[in-house]
Amino acid sequence: MDISQFNDPSKLKALNYEQLGEVAQTIRQFLIEKCSLTGGHIGPNLGVVELTIMLHKLFDSPKDKFIWDVGHQAYVHKILTGRADQFDTLRQYKGLSGFPKRAESAHDVWETGHSSTSLSAAMGMAAARDIRGEKNYVIPIIGDGALTGGMALEALNHIGHEKTNMIVILNDNEMSIAPNVGAMHTMLGRLRASGKYNTAKDELEYIMRKIPAIGGHLADAAEKLKDSLKYMVVSGMFFEELGFTYLGPIDGHDYEELEKTLTYAKKVDGPTLVHVVTKKGKGYKPAENDKIGTWHGTGPYKIETGDFVKSPTKGPAWSALIADTVEGIAEDDRRVVAITPAMPVGSKLEKFAKRFPDRFYDVGIAEQHAVTMAGGLAADGMKPFVAIYSTFLQRAYDQVLHDVTRQKLNVFFGIDRAGLVGADGETHHGVFDIAFLRHLPNIVIMQPKDENEGQHMVKTALSYDDGPIALRFPRGNGVGVEMDTELKPLPIGSWEVLERGNDVTILTFGTMIPTALEASQIAFERRGISVEVVNARFIKPMDEQMLADIRDAGKMIVTLEEGVAAGGFGSGVLEWYHEKALVQEDVPSVKVLGIPDEYVEHGSVDELLKEVHLTAEEVAEVIIKMVEEEQEIK
Amino acid sequence: MDISQFNDPSKLKALNYEQLGEVAQTIRQFLIEKCSLTGGHIGPNLGVVELTIMLHKLFDSPKDKFIWDVGHQAYVHKILTGRADQFDTLRQYKGLSGFPKRAESAHDVWETGHSSTSLSAAMGMAAARDIRGEKNYVIPIIGDGALTGGMALEALNHIGHEKTNMIVILNDNEMSIAPNVGAMHTMLGRLRASGKYNTAKDELEYIMRKIPAIGGHLADAAEKLKDSLKYMVVSGMFFEELGFTYLGPIDGHDYEELEKTLTYAKKVDGPTLVHVVTKKGKGYKPAENDKIGTWHGTGPYKIETGDFVKSPTKGPAWSALIADTVEGIAEDDRRVVAITPAMPVGSKLEKFAKRFPDRFYDVGIAEQHAVTMAGGLAADGMKPFVAIYSTFLQRAYDQVLHDVTRQKLNVFFGIDRAGLVGADGETHHGVFDIAFLRHLPNIVIMQPKDENEGQHMVKTALSYDDGPIALRFPRGNGVGVEMDTELKPLPIGSWEVLERGNDVTILTFGTMIPTALEASQIAFERRGISVEVVNARFIKPMDEQMLADIRDAGKMIVTLEEGVAAGGFGSGVLEWYHEKALVQEDVPSVKVLGIPDEYVEHGSVDELLKEVHLTAEEVAEVIIKMVEEEQEIK
Repeated sequence: MDISQFNDPSKLKALNYEQLGEVAQTIRQFLIEKCSLTGGHIGPNLGVVELTIMLHKLFDSPKDKFIWDVGHQAYVHKILTGRADQFDTLRQYKGLSGFPKRAESAHDVWETGHSSTSLSAAMGMAAARDIRGEKNYVIPIIGDGALTGGMALEALNHIGHEKTNMIVILNDNEMSIAPNVGAMHTMLGRLRASGKYNTAKDELEYIMRKIPAIGGHLADAAEKLKDSLKYMVVSGMFFEELGFTYLGPIDGHDYEELEKTLTYAKKVDGPTLVHVVTKKGKGYKPAENDKIGTWHGTGPYKIETGDFVKSPTKGPAWSALIADTVEGIAEDDRRVVAITPAMPVGSKLEKFAKRFPDRFYDVGIAEQHAVTMAGGLAADGMKPFVAIYSTFLQRAYDQVLHDVTRQKLNVFFGIDRAGLVGADGETHHGVFDIAFLRHLPNIVIMQPKDENEGQHMVKTALSYDDGPIALRFPRGNGVGVEMDTELKPLPIGSWEVLERGNDVTILTFGTMIPTALEASQIAFERRGISVEVVNARFIKPMDEQMLADIRDAGKMIVTLEEGVAAGGFGSGVLEWYHEKALVQEDVPSVKVLGIPDEYVEHGSVDELLKEVHLTAEEVAEVIIKMVEEEQEIK
Repeated sequence: MDISQFNDPSKLKALNYEQLGEVAQTIRQFLIEKCSLTGGHIGPNLGVVELTIMLHKLFDSPKDKFIWDVGHQAYVHKILTGRADQFDTLRQYKGLSGFPKRAESAHDVWETGHSSTSLSAAMGMAAARDIRGEKNYVIPIIGDGALTGGMALEALNHIGHEKTNMIVILNDNEMSIAPNVGAMHTMLGRLRASGKYNTAKDELEYIMRKIPAIGGHLADAAEKLKDSLKYMVVSGMFFEELGFTYLGPIDGHDYEELEKTLTYAKKVDGPTLVHVVTKKGKGYKPAENDKIGTWHGTGPYKIETGDFVKSPTKGPAWSALIADTVEGIAEDDRRVVAITPAMPVGSKLEKFAKRFPDRFYDVGIAEQHAVTMAGGLAADGMKPFVAIYSTFLQRAYDQVLHDVTRQKLNVFFGIDRAGLVGADGETHHGVFDIAFLRHLPNIVIMQPKDENEGQHMVKTALSYDDGPIALRFPRGNGVGVEMDTELKPLPIGSWEVLERGNDVTILTFGTMIPTALEASQIAFERRGISVEVVNARFIKPMDEQMLADIRDAGKMIVTLEEGVAAGGFGSGVLEWYHEKALVQEDVPSVKVLGIPDEYVEHGSVDELLKEVHLTAEEVAEVIIKMVEEEQEIK
């Protein structure tokens, strides 16, 4: 079967189960091959092959709207809607996105990346339909992990209340990125186990008829007992309580069950939840056997063995370095508690969890709860470490603002994947955190130049007891420096000069330091410009003495950051100089370099840095132009 | 009974129900009197008098931790913990806060203001207790409205999973700020109605015994039927499914029921949810009879009649002006849909709701869902208007960033209560929205100088179709200008000069415009300085032509905003000038005036503006100093 013929999903309508099986087989093989080269979310996609095929067979996309929660499981949908031939470019610069993209296809009606948004979007689209009096189906497809994110629950509560027509597909694979946690997960487990309840309905009604007719004060009670039957025959009580018709659980790899149930769901009035049980990684043994989430999203791998193709790295993985250092300190400090919102694997906290199970909490996809729970721990004298990706911390902005920084609580935020993340693209870049944290009172924000400084910063954070402190670090690995054996806290707000110079000072931190050093080199070689490079490792508070010294020495300044320029670090530098000066004469020349006011798509980090003009070459050019302009004036 | 004797909650332990009744009576009278003078959240507090008394009788605060969700219902708790004598200063500058405050009392273990945070904080404190191996109770008190906020549901899911010891008090008064909505609300209604189920338990078991013994293939089914009894006798299935022991519903004004149930709850292992039904406004007729939320929080009122003491206003209430203008446009434009997260009253959307019920959604306390649902509507061609308070929009930062601005969807945000809000204090000031929105690509942000410009901006927003647009407006009333009868969209990014001047330009907007005009007057009168005042009504994008003209004319600049200075509007002005210039010579003198890097407490807006140095007098002083400094240099 040639995959390039899958360009029109309506062709599926004529196929029988056997033919659909061949389609599934072809897609699986295609996915395993393509992802082995490009990397990608292979596990989730292998799990939804039959489900996606059946959805496209039974509904009419894009009139009927599929809304893929998180969206990393939309590869099959992309293939079926004519994008198979672009899979060589998957997640690559200017190539096919790993998530739904409205610009790619009319079949992608909603873009995702973060979890738990699909039900709210679906409610919006269903409301639009109903207001216009149109008829079409709205079908959010949400995983059991994403379902426990707060906003998904808010949406369930609202949709059930409005009784809006909608078919929610609960894609239950017992895992999100890591094995799922939470009471709802346990509840779904009971549902999966109790599938046979539904079939027992007839028998139960027979028994009920055998209950003797009862009068007097017991009549009411008997009536209630009969009512209560529904609690048994409808096993999805939780969803029924919320106003949904619950259907399932069904096997998500069985076309007949899928067709029967989805066809019934189309006829139900009001919101329906179809509980579909799928197997993540289905059809590829290494992914099927995955118990912890390794095969959720991967880089390239060898198909035969399932071995990952490793690129050479110099230093330790940043996540591991930070987690391990926290673990080391937790040994001596019983106040240290680690919290992750569903990222024990990504944040490399498995070791911590094993060693200190009573001080480790994976709260599931629940960033808001994670942050405020940390606030509660801190308010009661503990030292919580919240391991969270920059992009997901966005979800907890109000909790950081209202609960933690406002109460000046000693929460340590380990902000992972800060900066551009590469292939996951615009929904995942950690480029906003400086801008959304810097304006909050009471918070300290830092980023290390290398893994050695990184470990000292962990020590700094866990020694600090005057409020919240954030340590941001990038995706990937350290630079391979020697590690000190003894940890020492850094003075809060202290920068360091990495390279002395007289004409221009580059204020920068973290991943941009090598760029700055290289730019310095270029500017010197080309024009003999003497460039100073400062490791501005505290983004807040800044090193005010050094800022004043630089100004007083009459140097020009370039600020350089892998984050949005608006409201970012450089903006803070501008604010400081203008605050200290009444008139222009007392403000130095400052040029702010950062990510411009646009969303950055996917690609390799180097390609993206080039796109946003943050290369050593371009930084050097800015410096040269500044110096030339200054000389012209003089 | 003298209220000043309530200074030690342990004294309550010795009192009998009758004496406790007197305590309640005294507190109610006290609250009604004090709030009639200061204003405050009278309704919620009258509802929890007996509940709070019984909590303090049965538990040992602060060892046992009461965590008041939202916190506006903590007045009784404040009285019982020795703060009655401060109620004359309630919600006033430097006076008693209207919310729990850790600096006020050791009995306030957690500060609130925003809703739905209590369960997460409680989980943190319970975890701290368990890690340390201590014994104490953790008791979050949460309303039925707050319970449907996403983060509360995230917390329920986690707490039920961990089986952490905790007594959650569900204070069910069928209203949050407005009557509650949502499927869970309906479910709670069923629970309230089915209170008698519990008592029917014995009778039901009797009936069960009458079911004939059945063998063969029906035996299983009969067994299941017997199991299912629990679904009936345990009426709180929803909570039971989440891992909680559900107790209730009980009458929250009945000491005996409260004591019996809470005493039982103390013995339960794992998390318990006690469903307490209370009557908002209990004991004060005007508040008891309130059906829409008028008595949730009020200004001063006449006790006898319940009439509100109205302060004289010039223009229309901002919320009403915006809502009514949207309503007028919705008449002609069927795409306009209004969404509010539980604020139909505050946002004055009742008229809209009545007129266009099919295009109005009160989604409950669910800001995240509100914003992304609006995104879904916009993605499907509608023109959603999200009416939301600035401080609550913080909850939906990621939804604005990831769902709306990233997809460039035509959502119209009506940001109410922007700027300092006064008596509600630091959890409610709308001073962060510029800083957290300005760095997002694709969004337009504007604020009108008066209500006439306000109505034109509504027209601007609903005519705009190139992405999201936000219109921020303050608490309170317009200034009383004449209103145009015809609405006209403003050119996006256009500022206007309100007053011409040659020396210094003040760039400002909204509520700060009168301050700027007055400062201009003072600077002229005292030193003959010619000050220009610009209505920088588009905060993003800015009027680049005007920025360039001001620079080219050699004027000095003051930016003035009622929002945090860090990352705010003035910061954007700095960024623009430095972006356009390579060297200092091309950057004008700019002084940024805004709220400094600290949380601002409660008080009248005028008092608070004075505290943060945003008075006409101080602005004039800055201008005078700038000009003097400039003259000295020359």
